[in-house]
Amino acid sequence: MKKGCKYGTHRVIEPVGILPQGAKKISNDMELYSNEILIDVKALNVDSASFTQIKESVGGDVEKIKERILEIVGERGKMQNPVTGSGGMLIGTIEKIGSDLEGKIDLQEGDKIATLVSLSLTPLKIEEITDVKVNIDRVEIKGKAILFESGIYAKLPTDMEETLALAALDVAGAPAQTAKLCKENDSVLILGAAGKSGLMCCYEAMKKVGKNGNVIGLVRSQKDADLLNELGFCHNVIMGDARNPVDVLNKVLEVNNGKEIDISINCVNVTDTEMSTILPVRDDGTVYFFSMATSFTKAALGAEGVGKDVNMIIGNGYTKGHADLTLAELRENQELRKIYEELYV
Amino acid sequence: MKKGCKYGTHRVIEPVGILPQGAKKISNDMELYSNEILIDVKALNVDSASFTQIKESVGGDVEKIKERILEIVGERGKMQNPVTGSGGMLIGTIEKIGSDLEGKIDLQEGDKIATLVSLSLTPLKIEEITDVKVNIDRVEIKGKAILFESGIYAKLPTDMEETLALAALDVAGAPAQTAKLCKENDSVLILGAAGKSGLMCCYEAMKKVGKNGNVIGLVRSQKDADLLNELGFCHNVIMGDARNPVDVLNKVLEVNNGKEIDISINCVNVTDTEMSTILPVRDDGTVYFFSMATSFTKAALGAEGVGKDVNMIIGNGYTKGHADLTLAELRENQELRKIYEELYV
Repeated sequence: MKKGCKYGTHRVIEPVGILPQGAKKISNDMELYSNEILIDVKALNVDSASFTQIKESVGGDVEKIKERILEIVGERGKMQNPVTGSGGMLIGTIEKIGSDLEGKIDLQEGDKIATLVSLSLTPLKIEEITDVKVNIDRVEIKGKAILFESGIYAKLPTDMEETLALAALDVAGAPAQTAKLCKENDSVLILGAAGKSGLMCCYEAMKKVGKNGNVIGLVRSQKDADLLNELGFCHNVIMGDARNPVDVLNKVLEVNNGKEIDISINCVNVTDTEMSTILPVRDDGTVYFFSMATSFTKAALGAEGVGKDVNMIIGNGYTKGHADLTLAELRENQELRKIYEELYV
Repeated sequence: MKKGCKYGTHRVIEPVGILPQGAKKISNDMELYSNEILIDVKALNVDSASFTQIKESVGGDVEKIKERILEIVGERGKMQNPVTGSGGMLIGTIEKIGSDLEGKIDLQEGDKIATLVSLSLTPLKIEEITDVKVNIDRVEIKGKAILFESGIYAKLPTDMEETLALAALDVAGAPAQTAKLCKENDSVLILGAAGKSGLMCCYEAMKKVGKNGNVIGLVRSQKDADLLNELGFCHNVIMGDARNPVDVLNKVLEVNNGKEIDISINCVNVTDTEMSTILPVRDDGTVYFFSMATSFTKAALGAEGVGKDVNMIIGNGYTKGHADLTLAELRENQELRKIYEELYV
């Protein structure tokens, strides 16, 4: 067995020398290097921005979604949407561990895992797409994938269905970062509050800010507003279009005693929501973009354009302990678990 | 006089209701609203990423650069490059102050100012482009522009040439944010260290980290390395291609006792340098993207892909006191001022 680069550069075909995530094409040859792990893949959880883009580009037709996914993986050796740049994650079973890693990691052949690195850098070969669950961005396949030495993963828990764990782990970065950012008494706006990551962020923010804080959830529909109110995951729920910053600002001020908020967290999976995330935040406050539809220049120039001295953070899908924290939320709160089971499994 | 929106939404033509920065087209009608300021424009300092894109798209031909700029401003009512999304800034003289602002701000008609909000949201009408200074991204014009009530600006200082002040103010966010981020004894990598913003960041970082810190400047050419070494603006200068993260990582480790660094600051004006900015940083360290060529998804997914728990910040062009801090650098250091006069005026 040959030894590869810790970060997977040995599999990059074009352009040579860069890391797999940025590459146009990587090798999905399933011959294993000594510091790689071979996974027998069962399902892909495609990133929400990516799945929405593919679904809309083919008018929602399931067979065409399959075709498009096979085409992307065929061309690139990985499931990275060329329009959004994003990927997703997978679950599967450990088929083989490279000789340099064997015994040095907490994995054995046969373990069920979810990869917590993006599909946008994971060598993937699809034999067959067996099902597409359109409402949960999930693609069931027969296929194989490779995990590099630097790749992070979570062993799937035994006290919940693997589809449930996967749905939660897919957005694990968001609640974990929310827990790091929010402090007691903070006022926090969560955009896309009733979505997959938004719900988790609301729940975590409520725990952190306490009863004198103010968690404000922005949602698009009355149905989502009702859901959040029923769950009690926010102090205040507001309804509006996240692409209309002036309207969002006014509605936030209304439920926050006319004051700008301390922190905003963007969990919306459509474009052009940067300014609604920035405008309601006080000077020296924090703006956290978890949405993969965020535009760097729109955020950077937008904040400058309205003279806002705010700390803008690029949502990092990984932070220490993020998998454990997220799975713990589902164990802690039966209502959250139930909603996840109903909507995302 | 009618009163407009503080943030300029009254001038947005398409799509209606959003802020001017995100708009495809805004009104550059020069009839003034009561909370606007009319500026007689002398010159545009086009954002480096934008200018480079335009210059390369027309093969460096000055007349074609002029044509392309007139075309963009004609279509959009503002100088926002549709490819990069970025703008730049302008200098000019206050021609008229709207009745609602008169006497309430520290400006009078006839004052020379630089706008510190981006051209990407500033209503602009160009009568004539009189000169293009290709090597300093500067476009001299006859024309008018509008500053909104929320717009930030700096009165031009009297102790230096206005072209010098403008060149420095254009990148004012970078050194000011560097000063906020860096602490004593920190190790700091600055990518694009010999560029316009890079030089300012190096200078500021050296002041903050002190003699036991380590400021590492990454440059592309021997000439730039010689310049930085001569100036003494870095503890260590390394040469390499910022699009090659593995090479950059190895060179950083070499000059930092084999240890990952605390902070990296990206001032490079080309694409695909995200991973070189992320890879050398220690867990819990800070990654600051000042480059407008940064891709949000490449940064977000890239950090996750290599399992890096780092705090990634979107460079905000505005922070309190940024203009004063930046102009103070030029007064403090004669060598820095001389280089700015030679290269960017």
